[in-house]
Amino acid sequence: MVAELISVGTELLLGNIVNTNACFLSRKCAELGYTLYHESTVGDNEARLCEAINTALTRADVIILTGGLGPTSDDITKEAVAKVLNRQLVMDEESRRKIEEYFKFRYHNNPKHTVSENNWKQALKIEGCIVVNNNNGTAPGYIVEHNSRIIILLPGPPSEMVPMFEESIMPYLQKKQNKVIHSAMVKICGIGESRAETDIMDLIEGQTNPTIAPYAKSGEVHFSITASADNEEEAKKLITPVVDELVKRFGNNIYAIGEEESLESVLVKLLKQYRLTLATAESCTGGLLAGRLVNVSGVSEVFGEGFITYSNEAKIKYLNVKEETLKQYGAVSSQTASEMVAGAAKAASVNAALAITGIAGPDGGTEQKPVGLVYIAGYLNGSVTVNEYHLKGNRQNIRELSVIYAMDLLRRMILAQYE
Amino acid sequence: MVAELISVGTELLLGNIVNTNACFLSRKCAELGYTLYHESTVGDNEARLCEAINTALTRADVIILTGGLGPTSDDITKEAVAKVLNRQLVMDEESRRKIEEYFKFRYHNNPKHTVSENNWKQALKIEGCIVVNNNNGTAPGYIVEHNSRIIILLPGPPSEMVPMFEESIMPYLQKKQNKVIHSAMVKICGIGESRAETDIMDLIEGQTNPTIAPYAKSGEVHFSITASADNEEEAKKLITPVVDELVKRFGNNIYAIGEEESLESVLVKLLKQYRLTLATAESCTGGLLAGRLVNVSGVSEVFGEGFITYSNEAKIKYLNVKEETLKQYGAVSSQTASEMVAGAAKAASVNAALAITGIAGPDGGTEQKPVGLVYIAGYLNGSVTVNEYHLKGNRQNIRELSVIYAMDLLRRMILAQYE
Repeated sequence: MVAELISVGTELLLGNIVNTNACFLSRKCAELGYTLYHESTVGDNEARLCEAINTALTRADVIILTGGLGPTSDDITKEAVAKVLNRQLVMDEESRRKIEEYFKFRYHNNPKHTVSENNWKQALKIEGCIVVNNNNGTAPGYIVEHNSRIIILLPGPPSEMVPMFEESIMPYLQKKQNKVIHSAMVKICGIGESRAETDIMDLIEGQTNPTIAPYAKSGEVHFSITASADNEEEAKKLITPVVDELVKRFGNNIYAIGEEESLESVLVKLLKQYRLTLATAESCTGGLLAGRLVNVSGVSEVFGEGFITYSNEAKIKYLNVKEETLKQYGAVSSQTASEMVAGAAKAASVNAALAITGIAGPDGGTEQKPVGLVYIAGYLNGSVTVNEYHLKGNRQNIRELSVIYAMDLLRRMILAQYE
Repeated sequence: MVAELISVGTELLLGNIVNTNACFLSRKCAELGYTLYHESTVGDNEARLCEAINTALTRADVIILTGGLGPTSDDITKEAVAKVLNRQLVMDEESRRKIEEYFKFRYHNNPKHTVSENNWKQALKIEGCIVVNNNNGTAPGYIVEHNSRIIILLPGPPSEMVPMFEESIMPYLQKKQNKVIHSAMVKICGIGESRAETDIMDLIEGQTNPTIAPYAKSGEVHFSITASADNEEEAKKLITPVVDELVKRFGNNIYAIGEEESLESVLVKLLKQYRLTLATAESCTGGLLAGRLVNVSGVSEVFGEGFITYSNEAKIKYLNVKEETLKQYGAVSSQTASEMVAGAAKAASVNAALAITGIAGPDGGTEQKPVGLVYIAGYLNGSVTVNEYHLKGNRQNIRELSVIYAMDLLRRMILAQYE
């Protein structure tokens, strides 16, 4: 079945808010096995909205509209759908009663907050539709079954739309589907997108069910493998051999199989598994590596402290980097990175450590040491590995990539020592 | 002039990424005085993309496409535009040379990383187009002037698209307008969006030229004041009294006037101005505050070191927090925050410091100390201020807000002592 999304709201076209609804609903459609070919945004304009609905009716089985269900005169989604389908708007007594109750509850009968005339507009429903309860606001949702099409109207605020979709729309749409869809995500670090894709071009070109889709993230490549079958077990059976083949081809470059795993959560898991404790020493990334690790809830078991040693003095004071090393090789050098990581491990009394020193730019580059030159050092049980990187991008990109490659370096060192 | 956006990418239709490009470009179009009626997303499918381009050509003067310029076989935006406009794809020698250089620079002639065949696809251009330089990746952008229409092709990754738009597309589009559009951005921290908007509702309701548009960011509110006039001087004349009025109403809550200023750049500027040096001590934010400060190029003048003291032991060891303080009041307390900040200032021998300790969740909250409770302490020339915050959102939101409020606290302390 084909679905189509229409987001309604001039605020979206002005760039006042990011359209997270479209992302959420796209994902849900994929999970439900609905195919999405088009997604569009129109402003609060009846003619253009009607046109968008009419176009969607020619190419989709399910049309999901978000926004434009509020009480103001700008809110015209219900009116436009009724017009296109040639149906009447009629008063829904149940909705009317709920709006009354909502105002009573929310404003404690404060006379300043009576139900204003335009609030009653929200009690109007499209003739013959299913009214969907809104537990987080006054605008109900609506499902209209019209010839072989389904039109779903949802409120715009994500805090109302998301729970309404999960509570009511998801189960409704699930019932309409015969097939079960199942996905696996294979996450890779250390190879570029085009190289990764070339390596499995034969699989991608031969794909039908399951499908293989690559997603490039900063410093990473993810492959999503999706199968459609009569039941979950069948779908998984289709996916497993493809995942196995990717594991065979990419080996340790794969850091996780699973949507919910991140590079930091995998690293923290490995540290926990082998009872390792970690310290960080950061120069050009200035705390971003530690900040990202700390994003893993429960990281305190393996991570207690980190050093931000932006100045040479701090590198000497906290990490015991030798003054002559800094003089002879500079702060951005393999030698300094190596002393930083060993010093951090010693100062924090840990068996694993990471150190980053580099030139993130835009200033500070020279011919010998250009912007983007980064040294990352890993320490594990006494042994040190230092890698040199030449990273491209702005200051922010260079720092983000450094953080990713640092986590990946220690991950690989742990695998090499323990597995 | 009417603009239209087309985002290209199956990953958007699968909900794998949020379309922040559409929001950014919508905003830029509004700033440039282009009207946006439609914005749509299509997958990596030639027929549907061609249809979307054809539809846009019937109703827009400027069509901006993002995504689908990469090296893989999925990337078909250039091919689709060429097909619709009936133009050829030809090799652009300059692009070819740049891709070669990029690989040489990035991989240091490492034979493992040669340019793969599909990378050359990125050197093809649409016959007769303007090639737009990409300083942050391998895919150039393109501007095609076709009959009275302008078609602009931009790479999908925001880290490449945003700088390319600002450096090259913005000036190009500005020249195509008869009117000069000028904007000022007033950035506020410390008041919520609805309160800020209420405070200037009379100005917003009376607006025509200039217009006032609020943009809510995490922890901040920005007002963009935009005027259209025959020349820049006239436009500025229209904007100045509005900016003055906002300054009168919001006072020190305004941290910057200007698009390019960030809270961290303003704070670093103040530190430099008053010859202050800064240290940071972070618990729940685990380095994010320092990481954000270090995003300011040239921060080394005022920031040399920071402490990530996630564990109690580290708080004692590096910041000299008293063991009985931790026992009596807990790690998340006004007392601990106060000792952390004073300890950091002393250890690093600086005259300004910031400390953050809090419960970012999702676990670790209690009835007395719920998730979202954060203490932020500021130190300036011997005096300490500690603020208690009750922040809403997930772990990531709570940590981001903590970083913003910490920077804002020190900014206000400096203004109070020096201005």
